[in-house]
Amino acid sequence: MIGIRPALLIIDMINNFDFPHGSILAKKAQQIAGQIKCLKTEFNTSKLPVIFINDHYNLWRADLTKIIEHCRNDRSQPIFDQLLPDDDDYFLIKPKHSAFYGTALNTLLHQLKIDTLILTGVAGNICVLFTANDAYMREYDLLVPKDCIASVDEKDNQYAVMMMENVLKAQVVSTVHEIN
Amino acid sequence: MIGIRPALLIIDMINNFDFPHGSILAKKAQQIAGQIKCLKTEFNTSKLPVIFINDHYNLWRADLTKIIEHCRNDRSQPIFDQLLPDDDDYFLIKPKHSAFYGTALNTLLHQLKIDTLILTGVAGNICVLFTANDAYMREYDLLVPKDCIASVDEKDNQYAVMMMENVLKAQVVSTVHEIN
Amino acid sequence: MIGIRPALLIIDMINNFDFPHGSILAKKAQQIAGQIKCLKTEFNTSKLPVIFINDHYNLWRADLTKIIEHCRNDRSQPIFDQLLPDDDDYFLIKPKHSAFYGTALNTLLHQLKIDTLILTGVAGNICVLFTANDAYMREYDLLVPKDCIASVDEKDNQYAVMMMENVLKAQVVSTVHEIN
Amino acid sequence: MIGIRPALLIIDMINNFDFPHGSILAKKAQQIAGQIKCLKTEFNTSKLPVIFINDHYNLWRADLTKIIEHCRNDRSQPIFDQLLPDDDDYFLIKPKHSAFYGTALNTLLHQLKIDTLILTGVAGNICVLFTANDAYMREYDLLVPKDCIASVDEKDNQYAVMMMENVLKAQVVSTVHEIN
Repeated sequence: MIGIRPALLIIDMINNFDFPHGSILAKKAQQIAGQIKCLKTEFNTSKLPVIFINDHYNLWRADLTKIIEHCRNDRSQPIFDQLLPDDDDYFLIKPKHSAFYGTALNTLLHQLKIDTLILTGVAGNICVLFTANDAYMREYDLLVPKDCIASVDEKDNQYAVMMMENVLKAQVVSTVHEIN
Repeated sequence: MIGIRPALLIIDMINNFDFPHGSILAKKAQQIAGQIKCLKTEFNTSKLPVIFINDHYNLWRADLTKIIEHCRNDRSQPIFDQLLPDDDDYFLIKPKHSAFYGTALNTLLHQLKIDTLILTGVAGNICVLFTANDAYMREYDLLVPKDCIASVDEKDNQYAVMMMENVLKAQVVSTVHEIN
Repeated sequence: MIGIRPALLIIDMINNFDFPHGSILAKKAQQIAGQIKCLKTEFNTSKLPVIFINDHYNLWRADLTKIIEHCRNDRSQPIFDQLLPDDDDYFLIKPKHSAFYGTALNTLLHQLKIDTLILTGVAGNICVLFTANDAYMREYDLLVPKDCIASVDEKDNQYAVMMMENVLKAQVVSTVHEIN
Repeated sequence: MIGIRPALLIIDMINNFDFPHGSILAKKAQQIAGQIKCLKTEFNTSKLPVIFINDHYNLWRADLTKIIEHCRNDRSQPIFDQLLPDDDDYFLIKPKHSAFYGTALNTLLHQLKIDTLILTGVAGNICVLFTANDAYMREYDLLVPKDCIASVDEKDNQYAVMMMENVLKAQVVSTVHEIN
């Protein structure tokens, strides 16, 4: 079901959830972290690329350690317990919504000869959706496992998934278990 | 002499110099590190932005600590002794020659309302020159202190400075001491 | 109500409507063309910039005449009768959804010192929405007159407007007459 | 000698040469126009892509006819007599030095599955050189026929060719006749 050269994109899961409705999104992020971890393990085992991409929290420092410490709190810790970049995972920072804007993501994907992106993370209706459109404009195939994406509002999440499916031609599956 | 809102750009000075003629460039980089440090101190004191931008050495990790450790060797240590990012300095990674390509540099400069870039670092005829053109296309004013730029070959360095002056309208000064 | 330096963006109104549900969108585009024309006249009179940006219909030619002729048909003619670029209007082509992707739009806006974009055109939930996000990431203020935006499905249109308002901080007004 | 999927890029040959030393560059452009035309004919015959990319002369209009008429004068006419876009050639406008900056060039090349660019046109040490670097950063292979590139100053031209060869890994050939 996955394209021939897939990469797993994990968007904004390293997060302090310090914004309006942050505690709601944190709870939902905790619920999807396990499935994302499943996918990540599978990718790590198959030596396929796993790319964390993340806000820099106005630190403007390409500094993984600092960003993680900045984000560590009661809301994020249950996620960190399940899901943090391992040594072989890629880690990039992004300054805005889209994972492609102001980042080296496209260059990395080109060097890895990736043709398909699996999109996971938060928020489904903002950073994931706008990343999906930027990926679509760059002609990547998209795969969206619904149990790996969350938004503050469930209806917004469903709408974003529907847009990715209808407008951005993403293949949408209900759970990671349908990916193989 | 500096524009009203300048930023100091320090290009590829965190470097392992592990490439053809790397030992030559390392020596030259050691010689300019002191002047760059002078400028950096002045910028830090005036609360003006200092931005290190750097190759990621195929680590593809926004991970300052890891990159510095990767680069630490006999060639780089004399530079590190003089010049490393402080806590208030910005640090970005770039995947290719230009500091603007695949990076958040332009977004950072826009948020800081910068109109003038002071270009320093190595190699003058490659990463500095191509960064200068990308800055020029984005309509920044440029200032180039000649004693803060080095290339493997001195003639190439001079040619690059000449191009930045004539083609990219950079203001060129002989030494950092002429900047005020 | 408009920012100090606004530009009027008219998205994909030069269109052959030759796609699924194209006849529905054409009808809706005919209905908004008049209000867009109103705004355009006001902008032209005030010597403020009007920018048409448009798909190139796989011609890949920066060739206004050819593109208009390619698009001229029963569906587009009622729109062309109301709304075509005048000699003083800007005209750019875009290869993908967003008016910023693969175009000179940002350079043009920078040269014109624009800080606010008025978004008009079709389809509200695709090209207008994704242009809005790209504008937001570049830190433009956004203004969306609801009677100048149309999508195939009215609910999708409303959802896109809601996203522009809530996520992309656009100021939304019901009609062009509220802009002054 | 050409890569498997080459495109011919013709840079700024539609030109009014209305700038300092414009008459000198016009003469040199007239001299290379014939060889570029040779290559273009070969590409047209083989159904390989020919892409004209061009300054827009502050018209900011994707309007081939208008741009050509704007550029038509005593300096450009001898070039136009030899070399203008045919109906099957691509034509894009660029706002700045590099053919990749603010243009749809990369999207077009991606859709055409191009891996190699043949660089021709003027000025060798400005728009051609900076286009070459942008192409190199995007990982295209480069081929530069020396008799298809011109700069105001011959030494600058040679230096640019040398940089494209040494720094940007371009394959440099003396004449179009060595390409096959």
